[in-house]
Amino acid sequence: MVSNVVSQLFGIKYPIVQGGMIWCSGWELASAVSNCGGLGLIGSGSMYPHILREQIQKCKLNTSYPFGVNIPLLYPNIDEHIQIVIEEKVKIVFTSAGNPDKYTALLKQHGIIVVHVVSNLKFALKAQAAGVDAIVAEGFEAGGHNGREETTTMCLIPLIKSKVNIPLIAAGGIGSGKAMAAAICLGADGVQIGSLFAASEESSAHINFKNEIVNAKDGDTMLTLKELTPVRLIKNPFYNEVIRAIEQNASKDELTALLGRGRAKKGMFEGDIEQGELEIGQVSASIDQIRSVKEIMDFLIQDYVGTLSKMNNFGMLTEI
Amino acid sequence: MVSNVVSQLFGIKYPIVQGGMIWCSGWELASAVSNCGGLGLIGSGSMYPHILREQIQKCKLNTSYPFGVNIPLLYPNIDEHIQIVIEEKVKIVFTSAGNPDKYTALLKQHGIIVVHVVSNLKFALKAQAAGVDAIVAEGFEAGGHNGREETTTMCLIPLIKSKVNIPLIAAGGIGSGKAMAAAICLGADGVQIGSLFAASEESSAHINFKNEIVNAKDGDTMLTLKELTPVRLIKNPFYNEVIRAIEQNASKDELTALLGRGRAKKGMFEGDIEQGELEIGQVSASIDQIRSVKEIMDFLIQDYVGTLSKMNNFGMLTEI
Repeated sequence: MVSNVVSQLFGIKYPIVQGGMIWCSGWELASAVSNCGGLGLIGSGSMYPHILREQIQKCKLNTSYPFGVNIPLLYPNIDEHIQIVIEEKVKIVFTSAGNPDKYTALLKQHGIIVVHVVSNLKFALKAQAAGVDAIVAEGFEAGGHNGREETTTMCLIPLIKSKVNIPLIAAGGIGSGKAMAAAICLGADGVQIGSLFAASEESSAHINFKNEIVNAKDGDTMLTLKELTPVRLIKNPFYNEVIRAIEQNASKDELTALLGRGRAKKGMFEGDIEQGELEIGQVSASIDQIRSVKEIMDFLIQDYVGTLSKMNNFGMLTEI
Repeated sequence: MVSNVVSQLFGIKYPIVQGGMIWCSGWELASAVSNCGGLGLIGSGSMYPHILREQIQKCKLNTSYPFGVNIPLLYPNIDEHIQIVIEEKVKIVFTSAGNPDKYTALLKQHGIIVVHVVSNLKFALKAQAAGVDAIVAEGFEAGGHNGREETTTMCLIPLIKSKVNIPLIAAGGIGSGKAMAAAICLGADGVQIGSLFAASEESSAHINFKNEIVNAKDGDTMLTLKELTPVRLIKNPFYNEVIRAIEQNASKDELTALLGRGRAKKGMFEGDIEQGELEIGQVSASIDQIRSVKEIMDFLIQDYVGTLSKMNNFGMLTEI
């Protein structure tokens, strides 16, 4: 088999990472992806510490393949989460939404492979300097929290690839083997896929949210709450309420109160698609069915290989 | 040579279109691109009718290869522009920023190949129904005027490709052969490139603006003026003035007055990088030199071919 630095780093078959997503990626999703040759990630951002421990233990029972945990560094229980992944001997940790300087050395001391998620060149360089093993570069089109520069995957990947030496994983807008091939062309060594797995059978999201993903059309998500931390949401009544508050010059405290911590759970886990916060990527416009992880992985690989086989140089090679 | 529908449609060597850009793409740029095997476009949006006619005539004198004219349909002198391209027997017209129903039939009656620029699926379908010969789908990362859905090239191309039958040209974020290959993977039949040519030697932009493009970093452009027509600009003092006006709830009329018609000329053509409007794409972050069109075309083709040659299936083919 042809080597790939991302597959080698994680000890997996395909350079496909399932993004760690709040309320979507528990042990069922993570273990299913790992069992199909990708890298499954438990998204710890929506988990109390004892839940995270339980999820890791269940994931270990359900797959013998490598899996990881995504830890948003701004999470209130962050120190407990870091302690748990160390105690549970999790082999791979993806950190996001925070400073990679803070925990990378500690995690690596425990032999953990550390990957940091960035949305601009500055933090890619910072993460590399902090000693992470790989970088996820996430474009503007991605769901959930996102960068202030609004740089898209198409522009972000070549830029970071030109300045960084460690393995680079592209995220944002990747929902097919075509987009996976595009990301590799741009210079990525692998891909991280969120939305497509959020809508999978094994996702712990509420069926109402999965149906919203399937029904979303282009323009149905928008990056908002730029006054706090930018986040891409489906435009539902809750989103409209946020926009009204912003238009009325709501303070950061007022926006934080409106958002609350419960809105994401209400929307994505409890299925209140009117009053809940629904985080998903632009690629939802191209997702039109709920499938099993196995079906999704087979689709990605066949579509990727099929895309490569159709690529040609339009005779350019002979012209130069 | 392997056939390509975009090359065949226009009768050109490479499926590379130079985007029609105000204040950048006169006859010098358009003829240079056409002479190198791409399709050069005169950007009529910044030209008075008599200037457009002169530019077309000079372009004919300077290339024997196909070239075209881009006509923004919201332009005040639109009927005169349409009349001129017909009288001057221009063979290819790209229309943008307006309703494709209005002029497509008239242009086609005169044997003109018509391409319409869209930023969402709805208008792609509308353009196809109006009888255009091809579509340019332009992502959020593109410079200048842009769509309200904010859909990126990565998400827009596969979506439109899945629903539209006519040739599809990708635009937005394409500044290398890598990105060109990515666009083809996503389903595009060709690419339209703006920023890279705006910064070329043959671009009619002021050297100060070209230097701004070369110096731009990620996050230095932003889509703004969403209250009027969204436009991607470099964040300079004029941009800051626009943002302040928006924050102070300026009316549409006040914003229109602030923008004026002269700001784009002042910035891009006269070189006032402080008080002028500087329209450019996110990909400017990866542009680090001013080159001739010949150098740019050679780079694109070599980089494209080189990218394809490095693609591999990571052994996936043997796994399924």
